[in-house]
Amino acid sequence: MEFQLTAKDPHSHARAGLLTTDHGTIQTPIFMPVGTVGSVKALNQQQLTDAVKAQIILGNTYHLYLRPGTEILEAAGGLHRFIGWDRPILTDSGGYQVFSLSNNRKLKEEGALFQSHIDGSKHLFSPEKVMDIQRSIGADIVMAFDECTPYPAEYDYAKKSMELTHRWLARCIHHFDQTMPLYGYSQSLFPIVQGSTYQDLRKASAEYVASMHADGNAIGGLSVGEPEALMYEICALCCEHLPEDKPRYLMGVGTPWNILENISLGVDMFDCVMPTRNGRNGMLFTSKGIINIKNKKWATDFSLIDEGLDNNISNYYSKAYLRHLFIAGEFLALQIASIHNLSFYLQLVTEARAHILQGDFQRWKQEMIPLLKTRL
Amino acid sequence: MEFQLTAKDPHSHARAGLLTTDHGTIQTPIFMPVGTVGSVKALNQQQLTDAVKAQIILGNTYHLYLRPGTEILEAAGGLHRFIGWDRPILTDSGGYQVFSLSNNRKLKEEGALFQSHIDGSKHLFSPEKVMDIQRSIGADIVMAFDECTPYPAEYDYAKKSMELTHRWLARCIHHFDQTMPLYGYSQSLFPIVQGSTYQDLRKASAEYVASMHADGNAIGGLSVGEPEALMYEICALCCEHLPEDKPRYLMGVGTPWNILENISLGVDMFDCVMPTRNGRNGMLFTSKGIINIKNKKWATDFSLIDEGLDNNISNYYSKAYLRHLFIAGEFLALQIASIHNLSFYLQLVTEARAHILQGDFQRWKQEMIPLLKTRL
Repeated sequence: MEFQLTAKDPHSHARAGLLTTDHGTIQTPIFMPVGTVGSVKALNQQQLTDAVKAQIILGNTYHLYLRPGTEILEAAGGLHRFIGWDRPILTDSGGYQVFSLSNNRKLKEEGALFQSHIDGSKHLFSPEKVMDIQRSIGADIVMAFDECTPYPAEYDYAKKSMELTHRWLARCIHHFDQTMPLYGYSQSLFPIVQGSTYQDLRKASAEYVASMHADGNAIGGLSVGEPEALMYEICALCCEHLPEDKPRYLMGVGTPWNILENISLGVDMFDCVMPTRNGRNGMLFTSKGIINIKNKKWATDFSLIDEGLDNNISNYYSKAYLRHLFIAGEFLALQIASIHNLSFYLQLVTEARAHILQGDFQRWKQEMIPLLKTRL
Repeated sequence: MEFQLTAKDPHSHARAGLLTTDHGTIQTPIFMPVGTVGSVKALNQQQLTDAVKAQIILGNTYHLYLRPGTEILEAAGGLHRFIGWDRPILTDSGGYQVFSLSNNRKLKEEGALFQSHIDGSKHLFSPEKVMDIQRSIGADIVMAFDECTPYPAEYDYAKKSMELTHRWLARCIHHFDQTMPLYGYSQSLFPIVQGSTYQDLRKASAEYVASMHADGNAIGGLSVGEPEALMYEICALCCEHLPEDKPRYLMGVGTPWNILENISLGVDMFDCVMPTRNGRNGMLFTSKGIINIKNKKWATDFSLIDEGLDNNISNYYSKAYLRHLFIAGEFLALQIASIHNLSFYLQLVTEARAHILQGDFQRWKQEMIPLLKTRL
């Protein structure tokens, strides 16, 4: 994996770059649609490339381990071949899901014991096990196994949690280095900064992570309930202590304005379920503001969903039709809303990149943010 | 509307034709995907044209009247514009749904009183009202309001039901002739033959319907629980007494082999929810036979869903991946299965047409039917 910084914004820490993997080059800053269990919910892979213009998607280790399982993934020749996706993939390590989804989870030095949310079967995720699973999945970028410290956390808990994440990181790196990719292309391991909202912990964690000289680095444990201002403050601090010549990935963030603000702090990669999950609930992010498409006011609005978007969905179907599909409970509603929102997110980061290259990112961002937050 | 008979099979009553509407020409025999409430479930309109190659789709008067309602449809400029579909549309009259879906329905000479299955509101569907609604919807082909006689029916009930359908038909035609299309293109009204499984009633009904000299004629009240042999016998009798120079539409039929058998009896048009509904339950019709894709045997079958189909879904995704999507409860499963099955139905009627033109339809049909019924 190679990361090339193409441009830096003169008035912020925003950067434009090129991240090259064996499955192709990603233009950063980038948003990565979430394909939890081998599918970005409600769309197919051709729609992801052609309409959404996704450059990289996410998979989730916890979900893929439970279904279809590593045996089937290995028999298929890895996740790319299994799902028919030849662009880059990143897999989340599953730490977050073990604590948010599974039952009877128990944190130990060895790893996390948990019961499947599907059938109650018992499993242990250790750093070594999670590396092995991610070898079987075969993502281009694999994440270290961490504890995503909940918010709020007492200082002592946050410190112990961070230290555990650091010890697990060392084991992840050791095991990853001892194993080989299974499918003939290379994989990169990204460590994760934790430390809750405590500046000294975050600084220590970012410095520890930086000392690993990984191909890229992630910031975890943000956008978990803390105020936005605090997220930005902690993210800025992490970016400051993470290497400038490596991509920075802010996990699980966020709203369109969160993304622009964090780009200005030096973040290069984002993922979030918001565009798909909120889309499925009828919330649309558009170039004129936020729409609740189920609202009666759209019932006879025959204007396009968003003519500003270059895809054959947002500039083909009307708001009135999409509202009708939601009210009638049609599956097509979910498909259209998901494609629209993801397309909007991808266009947003693409425009952000263009403005970084032009040198007017900061001014553009200040103009965009009130627009993005407008409720129509 | 014009119907041109292009070829007749020398060894059966199968015909190939061209049905020209103001929204384009349909090659018959044809299968029409069902888009009940303005959406063929789980796919978008581009997928319907590009992958499925649908030439005409169905809408349903009962559903569209309740949601979004005629006011919104008229404001949109009709169903075609509302849903973004510029090929032909046929609307079912709603008689079937009133009796299968609504509550507290009551049949009177005037029409059918019923309560909405959505909110319990009370409505009257009369022949005149149903013609008005179908003017508002603006389908190219609109159906007469009938009572779909349930099976089995006593002779007396079937006779009275048929006579009511005939009286309603006269009112439909009268009212339709007194009103104008709303959107600048023409609409054709198809009457429906009823008479249950009684030969004399079916003959009388077909003769009555034929005497109306409509642009096309439909056969209703079949595939409602009667044995297949009886369906074919009644269908053959109806075809015999319906005009040869007008298209014949067999409503709500059926399995792939039902379609081939009825084509050989002289039917030109079909619709059925089977490809989409069964698809959503994991039942796939393929060129090698029927698959229950949820079955464990497909878990590691990485072969394509159906390489014999010319679309970018069936010959792109594997059986193992589609099974995984079903087991994991992903929306994409429904999209893929629906596109696949509809594409299979459309390819089947397209091949049937080619064989009619070649003159070897009957031989081909005999070879195909055992294959279509095979359970893999």
